[in-house]
Parts: sequence; structure tokens; C-alpha cells
Amino acid sequence: MELGRIGREINIGFIGLGFRGQPELELICQMEDIRIVALCDVYTDRLQQGGEIVKKAKCYLPQLTQNWHEVISHKDIEAVIIMTGWQSHITIAIEAMKCGKAVGLEVGGASSIKECWDLVRTSESTGKPCMMLENCCYGKEEMTLLSMIRQGIFGELVHVQGGYQHDLRYEIGMGDINRHYRQDNFLRRNGELYPTHELGPIAKYLNLNRGNRMLSLVSMASKARGQSAWLKKNRPDSPLVNAHFAQGDIVSTLIKCAGGETILLTHDCTLPRPYSRGGRVQGTKGIWQEDNRGIYIEGMSPGSGDSGMHKWESDSAYMEKYMHPLWQEYERFGMRGGHDGMDYLVLRAFFESLQEGKPMPIDVYDTASWMAITCLSEQSIAMGSMSVAVPDFTNGRWTLPREKNDTIFALD
Amino acid sequence: MELGRIGREINIGFIGLGFRGQPELELICQMEDIRIVALCDVYTDRLQQGGEIVKKAKCYLPQLTQNWHEVISHKDIEAVIIMTGWQSHITIAIEAMKCGKAVGLEVGGASSIKECWDLVRTSESTGKPCMMLENCCYGKEEMTLLSMIRQGIFGELVHVQGGYQHDLRYEIGMGDINRHYRQDNFLRRNGELYPTHELGPIAKYLNLNRGNRMLSLVSMASKARGQSAWLKKNRPDSPLVNAHFAQGDIVSTLIKCAGGETILLTHDCTLPRPYSRGGRVQGTKGIWQEDNRGIYIEGMSPGSGDSGMHKWESDSAYMEKYMHPLWQEYERFGMRGGHDGMDYLVLRAFFESLQEGKPMPIDVYDTASWMAITCLSEQSIAMGSMSVAVPDFTNGRWTLPREKNDTIFALD
Repeated sequence: MELGRIGREINIGFIGLGFRGQPELELICQMEDIRIVALCDVYTDRLQQGGEIVKKAKCYLPQLTQNWHEVISHKDIEAVIIMTGWQSHITIAIEAMKCGKAVGLEVGGASSIKECWDLVRTSESTGKPCMMLENCCYGKEEMTLLSMIRQGIFGELVHVQGGYQHDLRYEIGMGDINRHYRQDNFLRRNGELYPTHELGPIAKYLNLNRGNRMLSLVSMASKARGQSAWLKKNRPDSPLVNAHFAQGDIVSTLIKCAGGETILLTHDCTLPRPYSRGGRVQGTKGIWQEDNRGIYIEGMSPGSGDSGMHKWESDSAYMEKYMHPLWQEYERFGMRGGHDGMDYLVLRAFFESLQEGKPMPIDVYDTASWMAITCLSEQSIAMGSMSVAVPDFTNGRWTLPREKNDTIFALD
Repeated sequence: MELGRIGREINIGFIGLGFRGQPELELICQMEDIRIVALCDVYTDRLQQGGEIVKKAKCYLPQLTQNWHEVISHKDIEAVIIMTGWQSHITIAIEAMKCGKAVGLEVGGASSIKECWDLVRTSESTGKPCMMLENCCYGKEEMTLLSMIRQGIFGELVHVQGGYQHDLRYEIGMGDINRHYRQDNFLRRNGELYPTHELGPIAKYLNLNRGNRMLSLVSMASKARGQSAWLKKNRPDSPLVNAHFAQGDIVSTLIKCAGGETILLTHDCTLPRPYSRGGRVQGTKGIWQEDNRGIYIEGMSPGSGDSGMHKWESDSAYMEKYMHPLWQEYERFGMRGGHDGMDYLVLRAFFESLQEGKPMPIDVYDTASWMAITCLSEQSIAMGSMSVAVPDFTNGRWTLPREKNDTIFALD
């Protein structure tokens, strides 16, 4: 990836202008080599806001439509960015590929294994790429850990943890019921609804879909108390105050990999807590942990000689020393965009791969298998934490060495 | 519990004089109201060491025997303390109760559900108590958290975590194969081998066996790499260097409770890491976490008004403010004994309950259900992380309000 490079101009359509879509649109407007041909949202107010964003930055008004079919069938459009809710974005992605468009897809979990397979098969049959725009794969910390792992600092990896631990009670409890996808999901589903912020980077650490893969998972959900308690206290007049929320406050998911590693995911969005992605990376030579910003590496950290004396070190010197080359370049170039600069990197990775005709760093197999965790987790919980199998969306190509595998690539 | 009180003299037998037994024996020797009538160990060197400990402190030599039957059938003995390995201590406990002795049992997991039931039924039919000497139930931090929970600081509890995360590679890799119970277990078993240091306190937080109980669990084990890697590097001549260790490096166990709470246990003993019991307590009003010594309580901690601004506080002021009355007294009285003073408290709780004819604060139902987690976890892993049921050792009495329940009590 070459930051600051202006490539061949790409004409895009942009679908979904909500809380996530609008800031992303603003960011894309800063890119000289991207032309925004059409915008789409079902709500006219958002559509107009989107038009103003483009007008202000690019000095032209794109086509505005409430009908996404007009965007994906537009003859001048090469790629679509899909930022709609979880219930619609896979359907739109599939139809867009069928219309010959490359797809950049905002994160979210799947509702069925079938729609994940449909996504994969459509990409294979049309030859069009579909990349999940998982920004956390491009996080500074996550990429630095990836560098450390690839340099063997942790030895052989054994166990990795992560979580989406984000107090969303205010957001979920908002008054405008019909316009928030998360609220519908929390009211009616119970599972690992939002796995990819942690699972994306973990998949890269563990080489999932290229030499390794997820075999099975179990999920367990706690009772749901946090959202209702919040509503009773803070929104006593809300129509939701007596609603039954299906989503357990804490959903824990354990995943077993072909390489013998275990992954623990935690979904924790309806209890009061500081934000944390709860990272933990553990191998035969050491451990890193997000919540105490701690690292212990055998032979380097204090107390290595005596098991009773092992001491945590601050991870800051390691984070500096092993910073991923892309992030070293990014800091010189100047970070931009939301979420600590990750959004810009993931969007540029998508556009640059298109411009260069290279495989996507997060491909359709990654996208499908990460999204699948959501519905598999729901199934496991519905069946009393039964162990369920994770499909192999590569149909065995994950076993091939990378050089023999012309379809599956991963973040470098 | 009344610290410093000298009660009725109790004659005890002490079985098992290994690394755990000897320091416990020394601690008991400081108690004026306990008379040590007999000591037992299969190894004569340990037996002699035990005799010397008593001789030095108490100025008398107890009976020394390699045959535990002589201890449990000794007519002058009222109670036995059993500190033998995991494979024998339940058997000895059962036989001791049959001989009319009260039992204080060192921690460890069970190998079968049947032996847990046998423990319960023997205690019921003989009327003799059996208390697991789970020192962590008496930890300063654990008891303080129990106080906070009972005062409602965390609101309704939803999720609790803990772990036995202790680098034991040196201990397990020691040369003297035949005298270390843990080595045999790690070579041949794969499960949550050592749950009670975290599960004991958690059981008290969640009122398990008195109004709540564990319903089911799932366990997942990572591959086993840490111990072999350590041996290759540090003990290349060990007979174990090419042994296959069955025990996965990280074993994660999720437990669902009747009250809807989830518990996560982590067993992590064969990878390099600083020691941690990995505590986390989470409810509708806040969260506490051990590894960052952090707490966030809604309305008290910084950033409570805005979900994006919630900030961790150090737990130190809370730990001071809510310190359990027993620990306030203990600090005035003067802490003594190993493991930050916990060992003394749990032993005194056992002896004082005997002296006063009161129910044990950790009773046979607690003991059996906590130990059962080990074999249930093995079963779950052996069956591909299948969900397995946790037996109700109280046969329904856990549902009764405490005042109607004359057999089940818990740590006050």
C-alpha cells in the first residue's frame, strides 16, 4: 500500500448514509482518485445530507436515489460501498456483484449460513471481489501485534481473545426506534452480534483461511438486564421500557481452530463499562493483554528466570519498536479520518487493490467466515450452548500453501 | 468468626505432608486449641519432616504413620485435615467421615461425578461435615468484593470471571516424577483441572447452592505446547522431554447459572505469564477487573454521564472503603500464615465451626459441586465442547429460602 498515491480514478456508488455512512463518505470525498457517482439511502433527510457532503468537498452533486437497485445497475459505477444495516447489506452486496460491481462492505454479522455461501458463490461466479471494510484489521495496535506475531515474539500462538465491549445502552435506548438496526437486533436476537472488530485482526494473527481455519464454536449468553434497567432509570416514558430484550448482556464465544488454537470473543454492550476490545495474545514465549497494557515475553521481561517472579511490563516500548511498516509510513504521511486513522487505511486498501487489479487483503472468504460467527453463535445459544461446526467457505483451499492458492490472500 | 479466641481443644490427624501440607501444618501448630495427634504420609522423609515441625512448635511428637487408615480410625481424633494429591483425597475424606471424623479437605478437582455424590451421601448419612479448605474464599480482595456485591454496588450480577493463571512449567517439569500429582494429571487429563481458587469466591458472590446453582457448562482446550517447549529448552535430558502432555495450555470453561448469570473460568498453567486469578465482576451498575486493578461504577466513576467517556478508576479506594469486617478485624489482629493470610482464616473457620457445632461455611454441597467442574469439563472437551449438565447435589434444597434450609449455608 502506498499512501498519498493518486491512482486511476474509480467511480463509486455509496449506499447507506446513517451514523456510519456519513463520516465514511466525508473521508472518501478527500480522495482525489475517487468519483462519487451516486448516493442512496431510504431516508430523504440523510440523502440530502449526503449530497451536501459531496457538493461541499467535490463541487459536484452526485445522483441521489432511495432505490439501491439504481446504484448497483448504474453503468458508470465500478464499485459500491455498502453501509446499510445488518439485515440488508449482504443482499445488496450479492446483487451488486451480479451487476458487475466490486463491493466494499461495512462490518456486521450474518443471519444465516446460506447468505454467507451466497456471498462467496456470487463472488466466485462473477469474478467480482467483496471486501469487508473491517477497520480494526488496520488498527495501529492490531497491525503492530501482527508484526510481532510474524516475527515470532510470542512463539507459537496458542490462545487469542478479543471483545466488543462498548456501552451502547444510550444508542440502543434512543427514541427513534425505526431507524436503528442495532435496536431491532438486540430486541429479538441473542448471540455474538458484532464479532469482527476483534475477530478480523485475530484471523490475521492466526492465518485463518490460509493454512488454518475455524472448526467449531460454542456460545453462552447471560441474562439480559442492562438495557431494561437503563431504560427504567433514564427513559421511563420510552415505548421500550417494558420491552423484552432477547440479547444477553454478556455473550461469550469459544472458537476452536484447525491449528489447535482457541479464540475467546466477548460481546458486552448493555452494561456500564469503559470501552475495551479486551485483547489478549498468548503463545509459547509470552503474553500481551490490552486491559493492563501489559506484556510478558520470556527472556526479555523482568523475572523471566523464576516462575513466581514473572512481571508485567508496559507494552509501550514494544509497540514503538515493532510498529508495522505501514503505520510508520502512515504517521509520517499524517493520519486522517475516524477511528484513529483505521477507516482511511481500510478504504485505501480496498480502492488501491481495485486500481492495481490485486486481490483484496480481506477477501470474500474472510468476509463470509467472520460474518458467519454471528448466526452460528445464535444457533449454539438457542441449542443450550451446543457445539456447532464452522463451514469451510474455501472448500478446502485453506489447506494449500499460499503460493499455490490464487484466490485466498490476506492482509500483508 | 472471632480471631484470637481459644476454643475447646480439638484433636486432629493430618494426612499429606507435601509442598502444601507442611506449611499448613506449621500454621496449625501455632494454634493453641488444636492438638495434632497423628501425621501421615506415604514418604518417610516427609513424615519425619512433619514430626519435626510439630515437635519444634508443640514440644510433643505425634504418632507417625504411612497408613492413613490408622489416622482416620484413631479413637482420639475428632477431625482430619487431608492434604494428599487429587487422586486420593476424596477417597480418604469419605472413609474418614465413615469413621466419624469431620473433614477439612485441601482443594482439587474430582475425577468422577460419582465420587462427588459419594462425598455428599457419606456426609449426609454420617452427619459429619466436609469442608473444602478453599483459602481464596477468605482472600482480602475476594471478601471485599463479596461485601460490595452484597451491598449492591454492582447492581444485579450478570457475569463473573476468574482463572488459575499460574506458570507451573518449572514445577510440572521437575525431575521427581513420582511424587508430583500435578504432573500425572497434566500428562493424561485435559480439562479445568484446578477450578476452585476462582470458583469458590464466585460461588459465594452468586449465592450458588442457596437460591442459585450451576446448570451446565462447556469447556474448550487449546493445543498443548507450552510444557514440551519448556522441557526441550530447559530440561533437554528429562525423561519427559518427548512425552505427550494431554492438558491443553489454555482451558476455557463457560458455566450457566439458574439465575441467568454466566461464569468464565480460565486454566492457564503451562505458558509463560505473570500470576493472575483474572477476576472480573460485572453487574447492571458496574464492573471490576483484576488485571488493571480497575473499577467503573455508574454514577460514581468518571464519565458516568456519557457512554463514550466512561473511565476506569483504580480500585484501591473501593477496596479500602468496603473492606469486609472480618478483614478489618484480621488486620488489627495481625495477619499470619501463607497466601497473604488466607490460609489461616480458612483453617480457623473450619476449626471454629467444629468447636461451636455450627455448619461449615463451605459445606459438602459446595465442595462437591466445585470439584465436579473438573470432571464435567473433561467430559465436555472429550466430546468436542459439548454442553454438559451440572448435577444438583442438594437435590433441590438450593431452591429453598435460607431460613428454611437447615443444611445449606455459605460464607457469611
